[in-house]
Amino acid sequence: MSEFKYKEVRVFAPASVANVSCGFDVMGFALGTPGDEIIVRQNPEGEGVTINKVTGDEGVLPLDADKNTASVAVQALFRSLGFDGGVAIEVHKQMPLGSGLGSSAASAAGAVLAANHLLGNPLARKALLPFAAEAEKAACGTAHYDNVGPSLLGGFVFIRSSEAPDILNLSYPENLHAVVVHPQIEIKTGDTRKILRNDIQLGKAVKQWGNVGGLVAGLMTKDLDLMARSMEDVIIEPIRSVLIPGYDAVKKAALDAGAIGAGIAGSGPSIFALTADRQIAEKVSKRMKAELDGIGLPSDEYISEINTKGSKVIDVKS
Amino acid sequence: MSEFKYKEVRVFAPASVANVSCGFDVMGFALGTPGDEIIVRQNPEGEGVTINKVTGDEGVLPLDADKNTASVAVQALFRSLGFDGGVAIEVHKQMPLGSGLGSSAASAAGAVLAANHLLGNPLARKALLPFAAEAEKAACGTAHYDNVGPSLLGGFVFIRSSEAPDILNLSYPENLHAVVVHPQIEIKTGDTRKILRNDIQLGKAVKQWGNVGGLVAGLMTKDLDLMARSMEDVIIEPIRSVLIPGYDAVKKAALDAGAIGAGIAGSGPSIFALTADRQIAEKVSKRMKAELDGIGLPSDEYISEINTKGSKVIDVKS
Repeated sequence: MSEFKYKEVRVFAPASVANVSCGFDVMGFALGTPGDEIIVRQNPEGEGVTINKVTGDEGVLPLDADKNTASVAVQALFRSLGFDGGVAIEVHKQMPLGSGLGSSAASAAGAVLAANHLLGNPLARKALLPFAAEAEKAACGTAHYDNVGPSLLGGFVFIRSSEAPDILNLSYPENLHAVVVHPQIEIKTGDTRKILRNDIQLGKAVKQWGNVGGLVAGLMTKDLDLMARSMEDVIIEPIRSVLIPGYDAVKKAALDAGAIGAGIAGSGPSIFALTADRQIAEKVSKRMKAELDGIGLPSDEYISEINTKGSKVIDVKS
Repeated sequence: MSEFKYKEVRVFAPASVANVSCGFDVMGFALGTPGDEIIVRQNPEGEGVTINKVTGDEGVLPLDADKNTASVAVQALFRSLGFDGGVAIEVHKQMPLGSGLGSSAASAAGAVLAANHLLGNPLARKALLPFAAEAEKAACGTAHYDNVGPSLLGGFVFIRSSEAPDILNLSYPENLHAVVVHPQIEIKTGDTRKILRNDIQLGKAVKQWGNVGGLVAGLMTKDLDLMARSMEDVIIEPIRSVLIPGYDAVKKAALDAGAIGAGIAGSGPSIFALTADRQIAEKVSKRMKAELDGIGLPSDEYISEINTKGSKVIDVKS
């Protein structure tokens, strides 16, 4: 039987970049920054899971516990544990919504980690993934792991299968840095899925899975050149990139400034780049932003190492 | 300027298994046995590349130097080197033709390695790949590397791209063994390509590249369970396997007997299995053969470790 061990747990849950060019629906990595803070606390007044505060979302996110990904994930966890105690959740969004950085996934991952910790960790971290994915399903229609995986586990995550979830952490070059540039326009994930074609050419699929295997091998052998050659998406990027103003120029600027590769973060509109170190990342970030400035599009930039830890308990009250 | 360094070079060129379940057109490995022997010798009587003997082919292979893959590969090498000396080639087939074991690729790989050695190795081994691939193109229409790669380089080969060829050797579990069962029916590669659909579903493609990445990671981390989960082909096998009598039963027998995975070798009709060691390989081989015996189909079996060396010079005459 599960029972409360703490009164309150506060978690940082990082943003993440899904797809990573060629790895549509199968790869993602966690960012050091930005990320959400999620607080889950005992609700002495009763049973059930409630959202009692959301900040940083400009009033966009639902307070209805059956709709917010944080509470949906915790509900799924409690159902699975047969736990009927009450908790109240605060969600402090510290990243842009609808940006392609896995905002809904971060809230789900953070909340489920916090709730599990509140009960003294009855489940291992990896076993929490399906509950966060269930929340993703409620938010966008399908149980994807390419954001909740990195946000919960950290590092570079490979999703061999989402069905009987088979989620791997890949090793990667030590000093690898990520740059994310977020142009201030919003694209809804639902729309970006709808424009994809249901059928693709076998020849292009072979190219893509050649690149997927190449990127996995490049990461694991720390071969930056192989990673660079493999970070090419012949299927999704040509379709989705037309929704992002200035995309081709921003990507070219990143590569010209020394990025290993660059692409659409998740379903966009954020654009990410991977670099060998922080110095290159700073140069790449400036050049990417300059391109967006040039077409009059305001943007935010984030630079960080790959986040090795994923979601992280930052405060506990007994 | 290239010139002859030896009078005669004899090479063993191994058979290979392309595709490896999920890795259609991007993966292959070399077998210890069977394989061809190729002899390339100076032809004092004149210029050009000739085939002067082919054995073990039951008269099927062309003696026309513009059509035999061994001579086509050597012609391509000599053209590239600007070499106009004359050589005569003997091809001793020691593997079944049209079996899915890369027979034409082995002859091309072996011949080009022998010819390069005959000239004192002006090119590195990996630089010979495009000439062997050119011969594959002459034989079956496209420059595939998934048989010539393993046959020439040995080991587990990943073809990130065939266009500007990008060919990697992957590490793999040390004691890994391969079983190949060759039912004595012939399928032409051209026919097996024609029945494939040009368009595939995006969802299936995602499954496939999840498995490709999983198999690459599984090989490199020596994780047999991950390899097993990844050796699933949702695109090609369902179509091609119908051409192979008893396929499903043979595959099931292999898995039941402890194989890590099993699938169609190249375009078939041979069926391969990977196993953790020789003992399991022998059990798997017996069970696979028994299934084919049960439907009255005679077969040959081969068991070997993965061939780490690829094509190999076995005799040199000065």
